[in-house]
Amino acid sequence: MLSYNAIQRSELEQWSFTETEFNLLAQGKCESVMSLGNGYMGLRSATEEAYIGATRNLFVNGTFNRFDELEVTELPNAADVTQVELFIDGQRFSLETGKVTDYNRTLNLRDAELTRSFVWRSDEGKRIQFEFRRFVSKHDLHLIGIKLQVTPLDEGITLRLASGINAQMSNSGSQHFHEGEKRIFNKKYLQLVQTTTESKVDFVLSALHQFWIDGCQVDLEPQMEIERRKMEMVYTMELKAGQTLEMHKLVQVHTSRDSDSHASANLESLRSYSLEALKQAEAAGYDRLFEQHQQEWAAIWDRYSFEIDSENRFDLLALRFAIYHLMVMTPVHDHRMGIGAKGLSGEGYKGHSFWDTEIFILPFFIYSEPKIARSLLEYRYLGLEGARRKAKENGFEGAMYPWEVAWPSDGEVTPVWGAVDIVTGKQTKIWSGFIEQHITSDIAYAVWHYYQASGDQSFMDECGYEMIFDTATFWASRLEWNEEASIYEINEVIGPDEYKEHVDNNAFTNYMAHFNMQLALHYYDELKTRNPELLSSLDSILNLAHSSQEWQEKADAIYLPKPDERGIIAQDDNYLLKQLIDLTPYKSQSKVGSLFQDYSLDQVNEMQVSKQADILMLFYLLENRFAPELKRANYDYYEPKTLHDSSLSFSTHSILASDFDDKKLAYELFRRATEIDLGPHEHSSDAGIHSASLGGIWQCVVMGFAGMRMLDGELHLHPRMPESWHRLAFPLYWKGSKLECIITKDQLEIKTDCTDEVHLVIYGKRVSFTGQLQFEMIHI
Amino acid sequence: MLSYNAIQRSELEQWSFTETEFNLLAQGKCESVMSLGNGYMGLRSATEEAYIGATRNLFVNGTFNRFDELEVTELPNAADVTQVELFIDGQRFSLETGKVTDYNRTLNLRDAELTRSFVWRSDEGKRIQFEFRRFVSKHDLHLIGIKLQVTPLDEGITLRLASGINAQMSNSGSQHFHEGEKRIFNKKYLQLVQTTTESKVDFVLSALHQFWIDGCQVDLEPQMEIERRKMEMVYTMELKAGQTLEMHKLVQVHTSRDSDSHASANLESLRSYSLEALKQAEAAGYDRLFEQHQQEWAAIWDRYSFEIDSENRFDLLALRFAIYHLMVMTPVHDHRMGIGAKGLSGEGYKGHSFWDTEIFILPFFIYSEPKIARSLLEYRYLGLEGARRKAKENGFEGAMYPWEVAWPSDGEVTPVWGAVDIVTGKQTKIWSGFIEQHITSDIAYAVWHYYQASGDQSFMDECGYEMIFDTATFWASRLEWNEEASIYEINEVIGPDEYKEHVDNNAFTNYMAHFNMQLALHYYDELKTRNPELLSSLDSILNLAHSSQEWQEKADAIYLPKPDERGIIAQDDNYLLKQLIDLTPYKSQSKVGSLFQDYSLDQVNEMQVSKQADILMLFYLLENRFAPELKRANYDYYEPKTLHDSSLSFSTHSILASDFDDKKLAYELFRRATEIDLGPHEHSSDAGIHSASLGGIWQCVVMGFAGMRMLDGELHLHPRMPESWHRLAFPLYWKGSKLECIITKDQLEIKTDCTDEVHLVIYGKRVSFTGQLQFEMIHI
Repeated sequence: MLSYNAIQRSELEQWSFTETEFNLLAQGKCESVMSLGNGYMGLRSATEEAYIGATRNLFVNGTFNRFDELEVTELPNAADVTQVELFIDGQRFSLETGKVTDYNRTLNLRDAELTRSFVWRSDEGKRIQFEFRRFVSKHDLHLIGIKLQVTPLDEGITLRLASGINAQMSNSGSQHFHEGEKRIFNKKYLQLVQTTTESKVDFVLSALHQFWIDGCQVDLEPQMEIERRKMEMVYTMELKAGQTLEMHKLVQVHTSRDSDSHASANLESLRSYSLEALKQAEAAGYDRLFEQHQQEWAAIWDRYSFEIDSENRFDLLALRFAIYHLMVMTPVHDHRMGIGAKGLSGEGYKGHSFWDTEIFILPFFIYSEPKIARSLLEYRYLGLEGARRKAKENGFEGAMYPWEVAWPSDGEVTPVWGAVDIVTGKQTKIWSGFIEQHITSDIAYAVWHYYQASGDQSFMDECGYEMIFDTATFWASRLEWNEEASIYEINEVIGPDEYKEHVDNNAFTNYMAHFNMQLALHYYDELKTRNPELLSSLDSILNLAHSSQEWQEKADAIYLPKPDERGIIAQDDNYLLKQLIDLTPYKSQSKVGSLFQDYSLDQVNEMQVSKQADILMLFYLLENRFAPELKRANYDYYEPKTLHDSSLSFSTHSILASDFDDKKLAYELFRRATEIDLGPHEHSSDAGIHSASLGGIWQCVVMGFAGMRMLDGELHLHPRMPESWHRLAFPLYWKGSKLECIITKDQLEIKTDCTDEVHLVIYGKRVSFTGQLQFEMIHI
Repeated sequence: MLSYNAIQRSELEQWSFTETEFNLLAQGKCESVMSLGNGYMGLRSATEEAYIGATRNLFVNGTFNRFDELEVTELPNAADVTQVELFIDGQRFSLETGKVTDYNRTLNLRDAELTRSFVWRSDEGKRIQFEFRRFVSKHDLHLIGIKLQVTPLDEGITLRLASGINAQMSNSGSQHFHEGEKRIFNKKYLQLVQTTTESKVDFVLSALHQFWIDGCQVDLEPQMEIERRKMEMVYTMELKAGQTLEMHKLVQVHTSRDSDSHASANLESLRSYSLEALKQAEAAGYDRLFEQHQQEWAAIWDRYSFEIDSENRFDLLALRFAIYHLMVMTPVHDHRMGIGAKGLSGEGYKGHSFWDTEIFILPFFIYSEPKIARSLLEYRYLGLEGARRKAKENGFEGAMYPWEVAWPSDGEVTPVWGAVDIVTGKQTKIWSGFIEQHITSDIAYAVWHYYQASGDQSFMDECGYEMIFDTATFWASRLEWNEEASIYEINEVIGPDEYKEHVDNNAFTNYMAHFNMQLALHYYDELKTRNPELLSSLDSILNLAHSSQEWQEKADAIYLPKPDERGIIAQDDNYLLKQLIDLTPYKSQSKVGSLFQDYSLDQVNEMQVSKQADILMLFYLLENRFAPELKRANYDYYEPKTLHDSSLSFSTHSILASDFDDKKLAYELFRRATEIDLGPHEHSSDAGIHSASLGGIWQCVVMGFAGMRMLDGELHLHPRMPESWHRLAFPLYWKGSKLECIITKDQLEIKTDCTDEVHLVIYGKRVSFTGQLQFEMIHI
């Protein structure tokens, strides 16, 4: 079982979580939630020894490849370096056999280190102590370090150890690589080359092994094996009782897509560079390399230092877990790359980016490290190429962002076929890539959000205005005129609630399109006076004189659904007319998916049942436009019909519950959000962690419990801490300044090093200060 | 451990062999040696439940595909249908956990059925009895049947069973298939389509499951899963103590390369055909389908009925094992296909055909079922296309057969890179595809052998002459004139002994080239009078008037190495000058490969060490040309330098030992040949069974112990039975007639139904008879 309590009262309290019992049913979950990475690459935490059902994944961000014309591009699963086969006296070592005691597998978030230790008693009665350590360096983005120790306790053993580089891996059967050269230098340095089949990205993996027996380095003669797509060193040794074998395996991973200068050269020089880097790593040694990695993480935790004094000590761990994974998955080194819906922790969603980034994750970076937020938005700016192509292909103008995006110039990469339809026995068609169109305004919204919070004018000038204008132009071309009603409609879409396909006038979509066009108009007018030169240069590409007229005319006449007599805004034209069914059997999280064992998607389409927050998400994003009573009425109507069959759902509901001052409900929903990856459900994270949910956890705390919002360009704080919390401290970036917020039961304190006056709105009251502010808490 | 004794004294004595203890180290071996098939397809015998290191293979003969331009074409590993995941009370069932008793895994050769049974005691102490059965139908070549029974003995269990079609398979990482449609009809019939990426062969796999509890058929509601490249039905049921669940899984496999008429139609009709065939199988039921399969095998064993009364009862089993696998791997249904070096039992050698077919396997079919021999030679006739292309590409004339062949028009398909060179750390280059050229004369030899034994004139007219003429033309163009010595040489080749690369005047190659040209001359002269019309039509394609002059001139002047003063014929120009080393450490069969852990191929090239019979093979094929004393002297010289690092080696040595009247040695080498697949070495057959060795086992008995030979168009018999053998009876086809040979210690008896007089040479004495002949044994 997963437990974060296992090492309580130790130094690492609230910094780590532990699997305290070997359990293969939770294998996939542990591989994902304990995965390592540094934004450049992600390494799923499969164990060194092999088990049925294990999934070994090594992804290098941005190296997308398409297997064939029937599949979509995806992050290819590079050669594995984690498997180390151990044979004890000729028998393959496995925890499924023998007896295991003192078992502990821990992800230490502070140091971004995975450790595993246990004593294993073989069927023959020999007890052997094992210890494993592993890290993916944050200091040298190309480095993986693996350490293992084996100590026979009672009697001597013959230990055979096979370790190397295995490129027989695939993405669930799809092989993305041509086999390249495999070479062993000096009977020591292994090097394997593989090249993606369609995108032609060269991967070079280099690895070495070092050995110590009882602390003395030894030179073991390897048996060298090179097979198809695979190379391996086999070392055999005798260990006496009490002797410890220690192995270090150092691995360098480089690709021709790397933005470091060496990548621009040819394969030969990339290979030499990789070998040279490996030798440098060898010279430094595992322990020094780990220290450098540790220092980088110490700096990260310093920048994102959260404090939560909660009666439930898990809360802080959950937040650190979220921040850890957000750092592990985000390509802060390269703006040509985005964040996958499963980060770099699994094959799920193929490494593609969704609105998850802009709406769920980006706020964390906007308020914690704005330069990363900018890099992620620059990725979307590069993506204009694909977005314009998608618009053109669909008969529209402007930029129609793809529902799923990979390499920025790719355009739409959403797969077309999904799970089985129980009625037809065929795979269901995934319509999101065709008609889930709100992504375009979500991106415009994120640009605006970033700009409002950061004041980063250079980003707006270089990228932001162009994105907002061209997305507005898409919407203007997308609207459909309803002659009878004299309104513009948006028909045949999917809103955030993906259980409802082919709906007309999804409220979220219509309101956000309206927002997008109005935003464009606003900036168009503003630039006329503030920066006519920039406007004229944008006009020359985007034909703004014409477009702005379109925005104006269409924004004025777009249909924006209004509340009915009960105060309910219809999610779409037909939702409220659909059948009501008893959702009790499906409401528990582990049973959510079972709805589709009983109903086909076509059948679910005809019921008042929602996958996730839809209209509620609209209330959150455009909160000024809707009165609190209206929000509550709609929450009470829609939540019981929502299965939260998306990791995007709980955090939105929790934040809205905070807004209603329902602290208990807000905290409960926060806890459910943290349980998406860290909860007891054994298979929730098999395909990878839920990156949007992790951003959502941060939002529950900062946007929810601290009540932080950007409204009309002002920073609002409205703390409503859970009853069980006594203190919450966190950093915030606002308009280029760092603020330190400390919330207790009694007061809100804000500190800043910034010498300028800071303007805030606290509990609806405008305040200005320099240096430090203390504000007495309002208790409801 | 493998044991053939396990069920001695039972009905299946000498018809089956058994693994009596669950042993994962022998997993690969059992998968291979117990593999099933029917010539159309081969199914490796991986167990239903998964284990680390298991290799699931389903190959359909002739469906070659090339992954990319860097790899060679190979038999693609089709979707798996054998895996059945079983969960007992929520825990994945595995024999690695719990306690196993009464374990028995048996391949029944008579019925071509794989069975497995055991009682498994879970860690919780529940005992459950399991029984599995599986066959690949010889009656319906497209059918696979799997049966399983589960009986909880002490307490009830919840049984969950997941079974379907899994196309996530690859060939060691190379994915040969585009993913096609997956569909479940009527919640019952699964169908998966996959299409090879380069050769565009459609595969359609259809499957169904049926269930009985205590003999009553039950309709279980499945949970249906369709994922990427995979579809699965999950059934959950409660079983009380003593209740037996029986599941039948029936599978239909069809491809667009099938020669049956339905394959010529489009994919849609192939899919309907497959579904229809599955429904017909369902109507017949597992037991009736198995009965039909059994009947086909009964007919096979009737045709190939061997009797061996040996003090070692294993000997007959070993021979039946050989015949079983020869039948399982040989595409008797389709002359567009050959026999792979590993049959259809593993990925080894990629399904390619080598000289193994013509020299090691073909004699079995020539003398046992000539029409199959003809089909295999027709495959080579179709291969003239690729052979002529290879000649042209290499600057030669005529037909230069590829060292490895796949689809007949492909030409050369030998891979270029092999195992690691321990000195350079690179993969060694495989030169066979470039310079192992004796395959061309081996094929001409086989044509001649078949014709001599069968008298099949229509084959010669339609195929044989053309093959012999055009291979001779290749040799004539291949020879190199040595001005100084006034001879024709063949330089820069590999002979049968593949440890020696780039040698000049390999004796085997030179003699066989000479044989090939002389054979062409002989038939050229013969046809002039016997069938001038055919000759003239062949002349119009092959320019025989010119070619025949070339053959004559060059056959007369080719260098044919002669014995030195010791009577030793040099294997090649330099062999006898090379260094002698102590081979003792490498002589045991399990250590053979370890030579290359100590020396690189370049280093081995400079030593007097051979992989396999080379000059000795020449003595066997052209036995009339060499005196017995010469053969013995060379045997005594070369054998100690031979590691038998090829499964082709023992049988040749055994036959020669028989020729020397060394019965003890002949029998010992026969036993070693049988142990290549059935011996104790756990990893000998991981990549598949050794098809040439199986043909060799038959040759040891018939060519060796019975002394059967075709010499100058006459059938010779010269029995030299091992001391431990009391009786040997076997069928022989000779010039279209079936003879029944019975050899005892006292006499040789031959019976035939043929009314014509039969002419034989027994112990060198010409005899003629009708009906029956008895001949007193000569004891040496």
